[in-house]
Amino acid sequence: MEQIREAPAAEPGKSMALPFDGARLDALLDEAGIDALVLSSKHNIHYLFGGYRFFFFDHFDAIGVSRYLPLLVYVKGRPDEAAYVGDPMESYERALGKFWVPTVEAARGTLDAAQHAADHLRKLGARVRRIGVERAFLPADAEELLRRALAGAELVEAHLPLERLRARKTPAELDCLRKASDLVVDSMLAVIAAHGPGASKLELAEALRREEVNRGLTFEYCLITAGTSCNRAPSEEIWGEGEILSLDSGGNYKGYIGDLCRMAIHGEPDAELEDLLAEIDAIQMAARRPIRAGAIGREVYETAMPLVEKSGRGNSLEFVAHGMGLVSHEAPRLSARAPVRYPGYDADRPLESGMVISIETTLQHPRRGFIKLEDTVAVTDAGWEAFGDRGRGWNRGGGAR
Amino acid sequence: MEQIREAPAAEPGKSMALPFDGARLDALLDEAGIDALVLSSKHNIHYLFGGYRFFFFDHFDAIGVSRYLPLLVYVKGRPDEAAYVGDPMESYERALGKFWVPTVEAARGTLDAAQHAADHLRKLGARVRRIGVERAFLPADAEELLRRALAGAELVEAHLPLERLRARKTPAELDCLRKASDLVVDSMLAVIAAHGPGASKLELAEALRREEVNRGLTFEYCLITAGTSCNRAPSEEIWGEGEILSLDSGGNYKGYIGDLCRMAIHGEPDAELEDLLAEIDAIQMAARRPIRAGAIGREVYETAMPLVEKSGRGNSLEFVAHGMGLVSHEAPRLSARAPVRYPGYDADRPLESGMVISIETTLQHPRRGFIKLEDTVAVTDAGWEAFGDRGRGWNRGGGAR
Repeated sequence: MEQIREAPAAEPGKSMALPFDGARLDALLDEAGIDALVLSSKHNIHYLFGGYRFFFFDHFDAIGVSRYLPLLVYVKGRPDEAAYVGDPMESYERALGKFWVPTVEAARGTLDAAQHAADHLRKLGARVRRIGVERAFLPADAEELLRRALAGAELVEAHLPLERLRARKTPAELDCLRKASDLVVDSMLAVIAAHGPGASKLELAEALRREEVNRGLTFEYCLITAGTSCNRAPSEEIWGEGEILSLDSGGNYKGYIGDLCRMAIHGEPDAELEDLLAEIDAIQMAARRPIRAGAIGREVYETAMPLVEKSGRGNSLEFVAHGMGLVSHEAPRLSARAPVRYPGYDADRPLESGMVISIETTLQHPRRGFIKLEDTVAVTDAGWEAFGDRGRGWNRGGGAR
Repeated sequence: MEQIREAPAAEPGKSMALPFDGARLDALLDEAGIDALVLSSKHNIHYLFGGYRFFFFDHFDAIGVSRYLPLLVYVKGRPDEAAYVGDPMESYERALGKFWVPTVEAARGTLDAAQHAADHLRKLGARVRRIGVERAFLPADAEELLRRALAGAELVEAHLPLERLRARKTPAELDCLRKASDLVVDSMLAVIAAHGPGASKLELAEALRREEVNRGLTFEYCLITAGTSCNRAPSEEIWGEGEILSLDSGGNYKGYIGDLCRMAIHGEPDAELEDLLAEIDAIQMAARRPIRAGAIGREVYETAMPLVEKSGRGNSLEFVAHGMGLVSHEAPRLSARAPVRYPGYDADRPLESGMVISIETTLQHPRRGFIKLEDTVAVTDAGWEAFGDRGRGWNRGGGAR
C-alpha cells in the first residue's frame, strides 16, 4: 500500500474549512439516505476539491493494463474522515496543498484504487451502510471489488445529490463561465474574420481550436456546418462565396464550459436569411424573458414553445434549454422531455440565482441549411445576465484568400 | 430504438476490407477463448475503426445524467456481424464513411448503449458464449445490464488480445508517432529558447501547451521541474538564473502519443551537471543497443541495468522501458517488474519490427535536482529508429525577459 504522505490524524468532529457547502451536501445526502460517497467522476471530484483535476490525466485515462481512477471518499457530516485515492504522481499536487482531505493515498489502476477506498471505509465500521457511487463513472471491476469488500453495505446511485449540490454556482464559478463564454465567442469571431471563401470545415475547426487554446481555454469540440448541408462534423467540405456557416463550440476555463453557437456568411445575407435568424433570435430572447430567481423552471419552455409551434416548421425547428457548468448538460432540468431518470426535475421548482442555463434554437432549413443560436444565461435576483452575448447576427467572413 | 441509418444487411461470410489485421484479431480471440467483443475504450475503438474517435467527446465524457459510452461489437470471424453503438451526433461521421461496420445505432447514456449492444448480441444466438469486455473502461451500470440481458453468456476480460493486436505498429502508425515525437521536441525547444530567467512553471507549461497545439498536436500534459526541486507539477515556482529545468510532455497526433523529456539550463552547466546528464545519456543509449527485430525483450533491461547498478545511486536513479502507441504505457512489456496481471509478458519474447518503445532514465539528485531523458525508439529489422532524437543535451534558456 503506497501512501502519498503520512497525514496527521484529524480530530473527529473538528470543523474543517471546505471549498464547497458542506452543510448542503450533508443535507442532500440525508435526503437521499446516503451515509458516505465514493466519487469517481472528474467533475464531482473537481467540485469537492474546489477546482482541482489532476493535470496528467486531464485528457486521457488509459495507462498500462488499466486506467487512472481517482476516488474521493466523503463521509456524511465527517469531513475529517474523508480520503482521496489518486495516482502516485499526485504527491506533487499534495505538496502544493491542493487537497483538504486528511488522508491521501496512491494507487495504480482500478482495482488498487478500489481496494484503498474499501479499506478506508471498512475502518469506519457499521455506521456506513449506504454508499453513494457514480455507476456511469465507476468501472465494472472497481465496483465489483467494492461490493465484495464491503459486503454489509449497499451501493446506491449518487448522481442526483451531487448534481443538486453543483446546480447553483458561486460568484467564482460564474466568473469562470463568463470568461469561458467570452473567450469562445472571441475565438469564433476571430476565425470568421480571418477566413475568406474556400476554407474547409476541417481548417476552420482547427483554426478555432488554436484561437481558443491561445486565449487560455481547453478546447473541447467544434460542431460546424457550411452551405446548405446540415452535417456538423469537421470535414473537407468548403465554406464558399455566398454560403452560410455555423460554429458551435465548447471550450472550458478551469473546467467550466463555454458553449455557444454563432452564424456567419461570405457576402451579404438576403432577406430570407435575415428573417430566419431573426425568428431564431426572437425565440432565444423569449426564453430569457421569464428568467429570474424565484421563477418556476417550466416558464422558460412555456414562454419559448408557443413561438416554435407558431412557426409551423415542425421537426426542422428545435428549442432546448438546460443547465450547464462543469458538465455541458446538467441541472437545472427544465424540460418535461428530460431523460427518464429525472424527468423535468426542475420544471416545477423555482430557479435560483447562480443557476446557469444554456438556451439553444436550431433550424435545419431544407433549402438554406443549418441556422442556430446558442446562448448562456445566468439567473440573478433581478433577472438574468447573458455571457458572451455578442456576434448574434450574421457575422461577415473575411476577404478572399 | 434510434438507428443512425438503416444499413443494408451484409452478406454472411462475405469478406470485408478491414482497417486492421482481422485474421490476427481472430487468432488472438481464439487463443483467449473469446467469441465476441464489446469494446468500450476510446483507444481500442479508435484502432478497430482505423483511426477514429468521435471529436465531440474527445476531451470529456460526462453529459446529462450519464455519459458518452461508445460500444463496438465484434464477432470473431464475422465482421459482417459487427455493430457500433455511438452518440446520435455520430450520424454526421457515418455520413462521411467513417465506420466499416454494417450496423450503426445511436444511444444516449450507458444503459441505452448497453441495451443496444445486448440486443445485437442476443440476435446472434447461442454461438456467442464468451464475450470479451474491457472492465476498466466499462461502467458498472452498463456491465450489469449486459450480464442480465445476456444471462447465458460469460463476460471475460479482453485487455490482453487487444493489446497484442496493437503492439506492432503499421507504417502509417509509425508516421503518426514520428510526427508526434518531432513536434513535442520542437515545441520544447521553442519554449526553452523563448523564456529567460523568471518564468514560472505554470507559464512554461502553458507556453508548451500552446506550442504543441499550434503545431497540430492535441496537448495531453506537461510534467516540469525547475531548480533543485523534484516536484513535477506546474506551479508558481520560478525557473531562475543558473537553474536547471526538465520538461516531460505528452501530446498526441491523431491519437498517437509523443512523450519525451528534455533538459535545459539558464546559463552554462558546470562539470557535475555535464557528467550527470552524460551518465543518463549513456544508460539511454545502452538500452537502445540490443534493440532489433528478433532480440529478446529482456535484453533492453539487461543491457541498461548494470550501468544503473554500477552508478551506486540507489533509488535516486530509475530506469524504465515500455511500449507506447495509442496508450502511453502498453505492449511490449519488457520488465519483470511490470504489473501483476501481465508480469513481463514480452520479456521472454522476440521484439518485432514496428514495436515502439519508450526509454526513460530519471535521476532525482539530492543537491542538483531532477535530471531525466525520455526517448522513443521504434524496432526495425536492422535495429532501431529514434523519433524526435534531438535536444538531448543541456539546452540553453533564452535571454533575460
